[in-house]
Amino acid sequence: MRTSFAVGVDVGGTRIAAGLVERKGRIVKDAVMLTPDSGPFAIVDAIIDLIDDVTAGTHPSEVAGVGIGLPAQIDFLRQSVEFCTNLPLAGVDVRSLVMSRSRYEVTLDNDGNLAAFGESRFGAAKGARDFLMLTLGTGVGGGLFLDGEPYRGSRGMGGEVGHMVVQMDGPPCPCGGSGHIESYMGRAALGAKGCEAVERYDGSAILAEAGGDKTEVTAEHVVTAALKGDEVARGILLEAGDVLGRALVGLVNLLNPKLVVIGGGIGESCGFIMDRAEEVMATEAMAGRRDVTFVQAELGNDAGVLGAAALALDEYDSREGLHR
Amino acid sequence: MRTSFAVGVDVGGTRIAAGLVERKGRIVKDAVMLTPDSGPFAIVDAIIDLIDDVTAGTHPSEVAGVGIGLPAQIDFLRQSVEFCTNLPLAGVDVRSLVMSRSRYEVTLDNDGNLAAFGESRFGAAKGARDFLMLTLGTGVGGGLFLDGEPYRGSRGMGGEVGHMVVQMDGPPCPCGGSGHIESYMGRAALGAKGCEAVERYDGSAILAEAGGDKTEVTAEHVVTAALKGDEVARGILLEAGDVLGRALVGLVNLLNPKLVVIGGGIGESCGFIMDRAEEVMATEAMAGRRDVTFVQAELGNDAGVLGAAALALDEYDSREGLHR
Repeated sequence: MRTSFAVGVDVGGTRIAAGLVERKGRIVKDAVMLTPDSGPFAIVDAIIDLIDDVTAGTHPSEVAGVGIGLPAQIDFLRQSVEFCTNLPLAGVDVRSLVMSRSRYEVTLDNDGNLAAFGESRFGAAKGARDFLMLTLGTGVGGGLFLDGEPYRGSRGMGGEVGHMVVQMDGPPCPCGGSGHIESYMGRAALGAKGCEAVERYDGSAILAEAGGDKTEVTAEHVVTAALKGDEVARGILLEAGDVLGRALVGLVNLLNPKLVVIGGGIGESCGFIMDRAEEVMATEAMAGRRDVTFVQAELGNDAGVLGAAALALDEYDSREGLHR
Repeated sequence: MRTSFAVGVDVGGTRIAAGLVERKGRIVKDAVMLTPDSGPFAIVDAIIDLIDDVTAGTHPSEVAGVGIGLPAQIDFLRQSVEFCTNLPLAGVDVRSLVMSRSRYEVTLDNDGNLAAFGESRFGAAKGARDFLMLTLGTGVGGGLFLDGEPYRGSRGMGGEVGHMVVQMDGPPCPCGGSGHIESYMGRAALGAKGCEAVERYDGSAILAEAGGDKTEVTAEHVVTAALKGDEVARGILLEAGDVLGRALVGLVNLLNPKLVVIGGGIGESCGFIMDRAEEVMATEAMAGRRDVTFVQAELGNDAGVLGAAALALDEYDSREGLHR
């Protein structure tokens, strides 16, 4: 039997969103709540409430299952949460807990992988067999989609595009490493560059965005000032684009993708970062690999929900022996 | 029908080797000649002579086909030679030329990809579904083997592990880029470090290896001196191991492989480079991805011939609808 819907749940550090999604990618019903901060069971309860909300009125046999995206390192084969920096979910058997209290099959994945999966089914990468996705947000995440499938590596923990080393003597990265893409482009790094810049350049609009308080400068202030045309702020983001471009030189030489999709809050609002990265890549990648198309992600805030639903549909179809 | 043999041809800058290879990976007959320097057709003639040599006395129906590994950028889907630095083969339709003059199906691939393929079928990576191979030789090459298959990217030009950017402001790379793994670990880079070292350190055995002539120092002299215990030479190679380790941090975060295979002349003679790289990776890669096994390649000089034969067997089996 071919079901009509799946539920996608996108668990973030500040909010949890769920949607009842049609096979074609339309969200027919959605619900959001703030992420509880009173421990793992409260988070699981919230997930179950949201699933109940969006499936109310739909017959269970119409729902293929539930996909859940977590900001965590997931061992995809074991469906276990190995590491989770911002939420107390490491070691918690989220899948079994949600399954035992809902009537649906549940599949977990990393949120970056699911953003890529969502774009491949319903967004900017529809039909692409080989692409890589980068999400520029609090961290630099992403996912790989190779030979028509999400590629997660031997334990399902691959796809950490933001944690490639681009500068061996580079600054520390929130993950504990150093000189990674995220060390240059994560919100923390961009905020720090904004702080330095207001010390050095008097007239920058970054300071005004921060309410005149030098100690309050964040990545958001840099982005907003840049979008208003402030040259100092733009310079910071163009430098980040250079770093991204150099990282993409290596990624393109390694993976020879057809398409690069850039998403995440910062990636989607600042197209010029992507343009700069594309310029660098087109000059420095090895010949024959430069015909890569760069596109902006299309699913925006819905990427997590749609990717999670796409995963649930895929898992259902392989359980049932249906092929796409 | 299940054939018994395939021919593998390994075209290098200085010699061309061919072998008649059994399905289990035993080379039953081989032949080698120097690579002609009188143009592309002389190279094609040499390839055909070698194929004739090794197949003499074997019935054509017993031979699955011919695989040819080239030190070139191959568009695998089109089977065209796009770029070839050391031999005049770019744009030459090697496949059609060899096919029209032999009785066999011919498949071309990049030599790094084939070394990985050979190790996966007959060598150190037998049975591994996900691994990456690095070959440390004149250049730093390699190949990706993902989800049980060679991964070549959208045009078949992926797998250039040696051309990831590890240092944005790093030295130039023979490929035209800069700050790549090969910029630090290729023969040219190691030779240059050897030259610098003999200027700075009086007692190093590197100079003796070079016959006392500072201008003649090559990577080989550094390797030989290191293997004899010279500390300066060892230091150069350990530094290279550090670079390799940092590159592997990124690769492991990105691809979460089960296995890393290190081959190539320098990789195989200097196990301590690999040990150092493994140490760095184990400290700095993201948690959960560090249980990577590092192994030396097993096929040595035969890797190219065996990988090319494995490719021909695979192509034959998919043409015939046989599954492994």
